[in-house]
Amino acid sequence: MLVLLDQTRLPAEEVELVCTDVPGLVLAIQKLAVRGAPLLGIAGAYGVALAAARGYDVDEAAALLAGARPTAVNLGYGVRLAAGAYRAAAEKGAGPAEAGAAALGAAKALHRADAEASARMARHGLALLDELLPGGSHRVLTHCNTGRLVSGGEGTAFAVALAAHRAGRLRRLWVDETRPLLQGARLTAYEAAGSGMAYSLLSDNAAGSLFAAGEVDAVLIGADRIAADGSVANKVGSYPLAVLAKYHHVPFIVVAPVTTVDLETPDGASIEVEQRPGQEVTEFTAPQVPGSGWGSGSGHSVAPLGTQAYNPAFDVTPPELVTAIVTEEGVLSPVTGGGLRELCARSRQVTIS
Amino acid sequence: MLVLLDQTRLPAEEVELVCTDVPGLVLAIQKLAVRGAPLLGIAGAYGVALAAARGYDVDEAAALLAGARPTAVNLGYGVRLAAGAYRAAAEKGAGPAEAGAAALGAAKALHRADAEASARMARHGLALLDELLPGGSHRVLTHCNTGRLVSGGEGTAFAVALAAHRAGRLRRLWVDETRPLLQGARLTAYEAAGSGMAYSLLSDNAAGSLFAAGEVDAVLIGADRIAADGSVANKVGSYPLAVLAKYHHVPFIVVAPVTTVDLETPDGASIEVEQRPGQEVTEFTAPQVPGSGWGSGSGHSVAPLGTQAYNPAFDVTPPELVTAIVTEEGVLSPVTGGGLRELCARSRQVTIS
Repeated sequence: MLVLLDQTRLPAEEVELVCTDVPGLVLAIQKLAVRGAPLLGIAGAYGVALAAARGYDVDEAAALLAGARPTAVNLGYGVRLAAGAYRAAAEKGAGPAEAGAAALGAAKALHRADAEASARMARHGLALLDELLPGGSHRVLTHCNTGRLVSGGEGTAFAVALAAHRAGRLRRLWVDETRPLLQGARLTAYEAAGSGMAYSLLSDNAAGSLFAAGEVDAVLIGADRIAADGSVANKVGSYPLAVLAKYHHVPFIVVAPVTTVDLETPDGASIEVEQRPGQEVTEFTAPQVPGSGWGSGSGHSVAPLGTQAYNPAFDVTPPELVTAIVTEEGVLSPVTGGGLRELCARSRQVTIS
Repeated sequence: MLVLLDQTRLPAEEVELVCTDVPGLVLAIQKLAVRGAPLLGIAGAYGVALAAARGYDVDEAAALLAGARPTAVNLGYGVRLAAGAYRAAAEKGAGPAEAGAAALGAAKALHRADAEASARMARHGLALLDELLPGGSHRVLTHCNTGRLVSGGEGTAFAVALAAHRAGRLRRLWVDETRPLLQGARLTAYEAAGSGMAYSLLSDNAAGSLFAAGEVDAVLIGADRIAADGSVANKVGSYPLAVLAKYHHVPFIVVAPVTTVDLETPDGASIEVEQRPGQEVTEFTAPQVPGSGWGSGSGHSVAPLGTQAYNPAFDVTPPELVTAIVTEEGVLSPVTGGGLRELCARSRQVTIS
């Protein structure tokens, strides 16, 4: 079985969610009990290992898991990694138990690799911040949640802010609440508080006032998929921040592992953006109410009955608005398709060697 | 006594709020039970008449009312108008009852004038839309609430959208939910539904995706104060929309009566922006829970205990990002200090004649 922290219950309660089969894990992914690009990859890989251990059809489980959410590329990556390890072992004549152990091994290796990647992204990202903003004392704005909750390590964008905090160079973390599901308010504020950072929460609408007042030195966000041209799909609300950052000449920095780069997706327009239920916008569901899930239709209405909502989960930021992409293999700036391909090639060399 | 529709209870319930004295009305204004720039002016004027009718000190009441919220200029305008009528009558030898009647007359006149201004703004605004967007079939994005709930008539920006709807030229009204207090979800969606408009609600974060997809033909918003240089203070989140509109070459149109122009405030930096309690961001209070007010500290926490929030109620959009200001006296485009002064002078002539 797979034991996960149920992120829909944070910050009110730390509740473990036990998945005993793949459909249960798929549901947990779709309800965002487990979420965040790197963690989705790890969870997908463990899901394949779970299916193998319990004697389910591994290919079928892999297809179910990979299709649970469309935008984050890491989910499919983790699933393919574990399923590939299973198949490779089976093709070499291993029995189901041994092949299942190979899948679990691949999942554990991905988990470890993600933790290491996290540490390297934090190092590269802090060096970039220090280079772009001499004098230290950074005021960083972030969106959605990118810390240890979404990672085998300390995360992506949040890990960079945390490194700055530990180095005594983070003056303030501005935390966008991140509507509709409030991952900033519920999760990033929880991680920032736990880390002893100086942070302030704001409605996403108030970010513009901070830029206008010169109170933002850099924007740090994660990514769910980076296309071959450098277009970045991330939590809805990221693109408006990129436009604001450009208008105010503030660096807009994307932090993501190389596995988030999808060279098969040529450009931003080709990225499939998940559309989520309108109830996430028309209703409010308190995180601490047991048994009620976000967007489950059991919340308080905040709009008239029958109101339809436009609710894309992600948006796409074109490369010309991205100052730099920070990966575990180094920093890409300016962001170009050629540079991305090189970064990916370097990463594969490292993995192979 | 003064009977108001309690806007904090919408859309779940239409509840009347009875104010029997000025402190009660001040509280209703501060809790946003009555809100919106034009309506604040009307309520302020009636508040002065109420104080006079009940034998309270009119100057003291006027000072209390005018200071209830700092940003909307109309509140002070309405208060001064009614208090001025009271004083003028008293100086001519009128007794308290007669002077009170003069204040009530001034309030009623303001109420009527606002309804007329509303109709004229709608006419000018629709003509502008048709000129800027030939071919009809407008897709309009709006923020916060600017309809009949805030006006003696049909409102400001919303009245223009409504005129387009009645003329068969509104393809869709995109309604920003408008965090933190969800005036878009609760009030604008309620007005749009009641008017039979084709509308969709969205989290404020999703507006960027609509711009990027070319789904927004114009932005229509109201204003709480327009400085002498044409800077526009309006609900927080307006400025990011203005930056997005500029980036996407979409007209950004402000609709407000001439009384919203404050020639005494020289520029955007001089506008005092109200900072509201952090609980509006860190807690969620369902509108339909009787007895609980927004930001009253009695809601569901959505952030860790002790989280501080940055919560400005308004932001300021500089004139270079405003395509046009639509008033009852006509359309100002481009927006310049000289043009604004002319518009105000024309308005005074009309009033005097």
